[in-house]
Amino acid sequence: MSTMRRRVLALSLSLSMLGAAQADEGMWMPSQLPDIAKQLKAAGFKGRPRDLAELARPPMNAVVKVGGASGAFVSGDGLVLTNHHVAFGVIQYNSKPERDLIRDGYIAADRSAELPANPDYRVLVTTGFDRITDRILADAKGKQGRGYYDAVDSATKAAVAECEREPGYRCSVANMYYGTDFYLVRQLELRDVRLVYAPPNDIGNYGGEVDNFVWPRHAGDFTLLRAYVGKDGKPADYSPDNVPYTPPAHLQVSTRNVKEGDFAMLAGYPGVTFRHRMASEFANQIQWQLPSRVALYQGMIDTIESAGAKDEAARVSYAAQVRSFKNTLKRAQGELDGLRRSDAVRVRRDDEAAMLAWLEQQRDAAAIKADIASAQAVLDQGMATRERDQLIAAITAQTQLLRSAITVQRLAHERGKPDAQREAGYQQRDEVLITGQLKQAQRRYAPAVEKALLAHLLAQYQALPAAQHVAEFDTVFGTTPVQLKAKLDAMYAGTKLGDEALRLSAMQADAATLATSNDALLQAAASLLPAILRMEDESKASAGELLRLRPAYMKALIAFRESQGRAVYPDANSTLRVSYGRISAMDPRDGVHYQPLTTVQGIVEKHTGEEPFNAPRPLLDAIAKGDFGSTAEPSLGNSSRGAQTVDFLTNLDTTGGNSGSPVLDAQGKLIALNFDSNWEAVSASWMFDPRYKRAIHVDMRYMRWLMAKVYPAPHLLKEMNLPAE
Amino acid sequence: MSTMRRRVLALSLSLSMLGAAQADEGMWMPSQLPDIAKQLKAAGFKGRPRDLAELARPPMNAVVKVGGASGAFVSGDGLVLTNHHVAFGVIQYNSKPERDLIRDGYIAADRSAELPANPDYRVLVTTGFDRITDRILADAKGKQGRGYYDAVDSATKAAVAECEREPGYRCSVANMYYGTDFYLVRQLELRDVRLVYAPPNDIGNYGGEVDNFVWPRHAGDFTLLRAYVGKDGKPADYSPDNVPYTPPAHLQVSTRNVKEGDFAMLAGYPGVTFRHRMASEFANQIQWQLPSRVALYQGMIDTIESAGAKDEAARVSYAAQVRSFKNTLKRAQGELDGLRRSDAVRVRRDDEAAMLAWLEQQRDAAAIKADIASAQAVLDQGMATRERDQLIAAITAQTQLLRSAITVQRLAHERGKPDAQREAGYQQRDEVLITGQLKQAQRRYAPAVEKALLAHLLAQYQALPAAQHVAEFDTVFGTTPVQLKAKLDAMYAGTKLGDEALRLSAMQADAATLATSNDALLQAAASLLPAILRMEDESKASAGELLRLRPAYMKALIAFRESQGRAVYPDANSTLRVSYGRISAMDPRDGVHYQPLTTVQGIVEKHTGEEPFNAPRPLLDAIAKGDFGSTAEPSLGNSSRGAQTVDFLTNLDTTGGNSGSPVLDAQGKLIALNFDSNWEAVSASWMFDPRYKRAIHVDMRYMRWLMAKVYPAPHLLKEMNLPAE
Repeated sequence: MSTMRRRVLALSLSLSMLGAAQADEGMWMPSQLPDIAKQLKAAGFKGRPRDLAELARPPMNAVVKVGGASGAFVSGDGLVLTNHHVAFGVIQYNSKPERDLIRDGYIAADRSAELPANPDYRVLVTTGFDRITDRILADAKGKQGRGYYDAVDSATKAAVAECEREPGYRCSVANMYYGTDFYLVRQLELRDVRLVYAPPNDIGNYGGEVDNFVWPRHAGDFTLLRAYVGKDGKPADYSPDNVPYTPPAHLQVSTRNVKEGDFAMLAGYPGVTFRHRMASEFANQIQWQLPSRVALYQGMIDTIESAGAKDEAARVSYAAQVRSFKNTLKRAQGELDGLRRSDAVRVRRDDEAAMLAWLEQQRDAAAIKADIASAQAVLDQGMATRERDQLIAAITAQTQLLRSAITVQRLAHERGKPDAQREAGYQQRDEVLITGQLKQAQRRYAPAVEKALLAHLLAQYQALPAAQHVAEFDTVFGTTPVQLKAKLDAMYAGTKLGDEALRLSAMQADAATLATSNDALLQAAASLLPAILRMEDESKASAGELLRLRPAYMKALIAFRESQGRAVYPDANSTLRVSYGRISAMDPRDGVHYQPLTTVQGIVEKHTGEEPFNAPRPLLDAIAKGDFGSTAEPSLGNSSRGAQTVDFLTNLDTTGGNSGSPVLDAQGKLIALNFDSNWEAVSASWMFDPRYKRAIHVDMRYMRWLMAKVYPAPHLLKEMNLPAE
Repeated sequence: MSTMRRRVLALSLSLSMLGAAQADEGMWMPSQLPDIAKQLKAAGFKGRPRDLAELARPPMNAVVKVGGASGAFVSGDGLVLTNHHVAFGVIQYNSKPERDLIRDGYIAADRSAELPANPDYRVLVTTGFDRITDRILADAKGKQGRGYYDAVDSATKAAVAECEREPGYRCSVANMYYGTDFYLVRQLELRDVRLVYAPPNDIGNYGGEVDNFVWPRHAGDFTLLRAYVGKDGKPADYSPDNVPYTPPAHLQVSTRNVKEGDFAMLAGYPGVTFRHRMASEFANQIQWQLPSRVALYQGMIDTIESAGAKDEAARVSYAAQVRSFKNTLKRAQGELDGLRRSDAVRVRRDDEAAMLAWLEQQRDAAAIKADIASAQAVLDQGMATRERDQLIAAITAQTQLLRSAITVQRLAHERGKPDAQREAGYQQRDEVLITGQLKQAQRRYAPAVEKALLAHLLAQYQALPAAQHVAEFDTVFGTTPVQLKAKLDAMYAGTKLGDEALRLSAMQADAATLATSNDALLQAAASLLPAILRMEDESKASAGELLRLRPAYMKALIAFRESQGRAVYPDANSTLRVSYGRISAMDPRDGVHYQPLTTVQGIVEKHTGEEPFNAPRPLLDAIAKGDFGSTAEPSLGNSSRGAQTVDFLTNLDTTGGNSGSPVLDAQGKLIALNFDSNWEAVSASWMFDPRYKRAIHVDMRYMRWLMAKVYPAPHLLKEMNLPAE
């Protein structure tokens, strides 16, 4: 390693020397917060930033991962607050025709009435977060490509296995700054979770899909769960004998008013962002990936709708897939619009150019630049087949019968290895899931539609330049539209995989038996499999190379930012992060101003009496009564009583996974629960644009009012140390 | 006439005694403005209110009726400013494939390049407005029902004929306060109108249907025309020898800045409002008329779409009708939503109850109340058959072939009378239009769809209670679904009216010849005609009774309002009116605030490159350049140059027909041109709700900037006495 590279690496570890960070952008590791103490204080935080860095201290030890998203302990008896939509599976699991908890909501009158969650539902408390970069990279050093990838993978698996030797813990390795650093994350896994309080769906999900991503918003998207443990205080499966878990700390719900401009911070588990990707990746995303995704999904939607136009049964079979395609398309278009609005290609390109120019002035820049150039070459290589890769992914993932045939062949192939060495997704424990998928294919399939979809996608594949072609695909599907039609007709006339029982029995067959099958689709899948495996290998080799090479880029970026007096947070990766900012209005477009707080008046305005705007009668009555007590915001509304707020908007930095994140005030009190972003912020996974990035929260005063006046639960208010009204 | 009634009538004529009127609501006759001088002054008007009352003085004599809407003279040489959409027919008339003025806009380089409008296009200058109530009602006194109606009708026709004896004038009688007063309106009719300056459609109609009724808005909806007269100064048909008309006055476009809160007033020709209808009519409109209109149109749309689902040609034939149905439905739903939001049933009911309670305290209330009760009885009688009347109107108006057959029979029937006594719409001068309709039926018709539509509507008719049935309809269509199907099948199998030539020859036939026709649809129409004529008679008799009786209600309302210190403007009836108010923001719903001025930034934000958001390149370039000169609003935008405004919002009281109305500032200078309302105000034809009623205007600074910097016309700026940049 050259001097320069060592120097850059050293810089990356000395964030504490940094000055002012960019305002409000940032999903900080708690351990970084002391490094940006000055900015945190300047923004209005009244606590000690270094307390926030300690996972074992309040408030961080009160923040949990729940149902794949975020939440927090809000009482000393293991009460967990998260979103209604995060706990939705638990509510659904406990609903029956004669007791519809989705529709009616639920209030457990006492602990004995708290209802067990589905057995796979988890509350995870992060108890350890240790840097193990040297251990993870020890074997990888000197390797390249697939070798580098496999070395990191093995070291990761070993570290996880060792960590999980202690029962009751789930462990994982988090990759920070794209292979620069690795952390071992250790989480206490609470397996007995129970439903305590849920509002009716028409409150928790008020506005439904129509209001999804929309501001102004009026949802009471919260639910209270409780974590239980065995009598020994250790994680346990559900048992009536279990006792409430005593968390090391819990958050106190605030009883103060909050208003525009107030400091706010949030902790949670954001899923994935791409903010530090290279300029060429930004350009590819905006100039090719998103537009071509829009075109791909539009084409698939049109094809399915046209093929199913005269067949009601086919239309029903594909309804869910089409709906999902439309969501994907809408989201891609929103992301594209947002990134264009933010001029993201130019902004990132200029920023990278400035970094490279700065790097030029540093000693020993050549080695760094060589690594960056090598990373760029790997990316370029991937982009050379991007059209093909997109089409083949759609062909193999968005069909039902062809996908089933490939899955059956792949499973047989993997079964030839020891279970631990099988590809993820094809291990013994995955077979239940695969069986489910094969069964489900039945309800989602019509031969004419699948053939039309394949014809549509493969016609595009056939039109690609020769360099993007794959021999096995050419053989199986032909190289002209005429051949394609004949091949597809023969394939679907010659398969019995449309029969569910046959699919399931094929799944049990070994590779040798399958090889003798005369089923045309199974034969086609067998011919395609080597190509699929080969492309997967190539993809892992590229991933390995990028894992090896990207740290040069990241370290240069971190050092460059340091020269600008700015800290760098790692891109989101489902680990615990903190962001801070304030309650913020928004001007989404010329002539329109969004107020940062909504009131119950908006519930009445939106109410139509039909889903998703069917406010329950008790809520409408309580609003009409106007008895808001201690939960009213005095600065809003026309009456001297003030107005009852519902949701509010902050400029906090969030992404998917931050659902249920607790929002804290300057004193660390819980003022809201994060549950969504605005539509204009859909592009924030790539670029944080302070003009448009907002997060949407349920105001805790709305929760308190509902629990005090509308669907009363005085015992829970008391448990949370909150006033009864 | 009782003493009380005379007293109330006297009060109605003494509006000058009134105190404060309700703020901002009101479409005032210019003659009323001195009566509300105090409020006008208090609102910020700096001129003399009594000057506004004079039609022969500025500014009123500069306000014109143009192309059915409103406009104003803006130079001493007859330059008329109105909306792009009001002048659209003129632009279209002058467009050719090789010279697309709709797409490209138009700038006449000099007067010789000004392009003649379509020959029926008119600019009308109101020169007389005289109360002739006594003359109109002289013969009607003592009569009732149809007799009253015919007496008013004859007196009206006589007054118009006498007034129009002077060439160059068009006259009409305006009914104010529902039969309380009648005015003879005399208008100079300028018949040679020419196109001078039009922006490209992508500016004039930026946002198109998508932005229709929408705020924030970004359309440059203006066009300049010029009125010409003969060399003798009198109105004349187009001739190259004509000379520009010299108006008695013109408005000066303002060069000052305008901002939120500034005084604004507007003059124009609002079409029709229903604000002073009785409480029962409000209840009927909101509780029955609008919901049932929504259901009726939704049913017709569904029927046509379903019947045409498998027939592409039928779908094309009905596309325009379905689009128009969808517009009607959307508007009805918007009106319904708005009236519910404003709680209009309750508000009007409480207001009327208060009026009646007040009336109780007056001397001689009995006679007034008797008339009001009689009016209510007439309304009740009409409502008793409202379902039937709605269905029969749809059956006879929304079909193509059946309607053609009825039209042919009706025309033959009317031809039996002297031309002057024929029903309006069936006179000799109407036959060109009828021929056109009969030809058009060809392109808008498919037998299966028309039969399905009739089956759908008549099934509802058949299900009505007996009291609503009409013998002739029962005979022709049967009284059960089975009979209906058989009758419709026979009718459409036995008609040749699908043949255009046959329709046109049938139109020429006299009643005797038609009576011998064995065409099934013509026979059906002949059977239905007596019922249609009878219902029409009944309707005119009701109209006559209401004309006789409503004045009692209106006079009571006016007197009641006087007791509250408020003046009453008559409901709109396409006569010249004035409203005043201010530039106003709006809070359309919880959490959303609309700024009252938009800027060119919004054009860039909305630009997609595709209609209706395809801003022309010169406009985008000029915006990017940011050279806004004297037309920038210094208080807006981020730059020190300020921002270029586009449109603005006022709380002025407007309705359809106010398109092109000049908007004046406190000094009477022209600051904007009205062109639309916001969606929330769609219900304002029934109720003015100050929270939601806004009018949308083109800021004259945007027009000036376009004419100075984007599509320059320095000669026109000079003519309007405006700076060159």
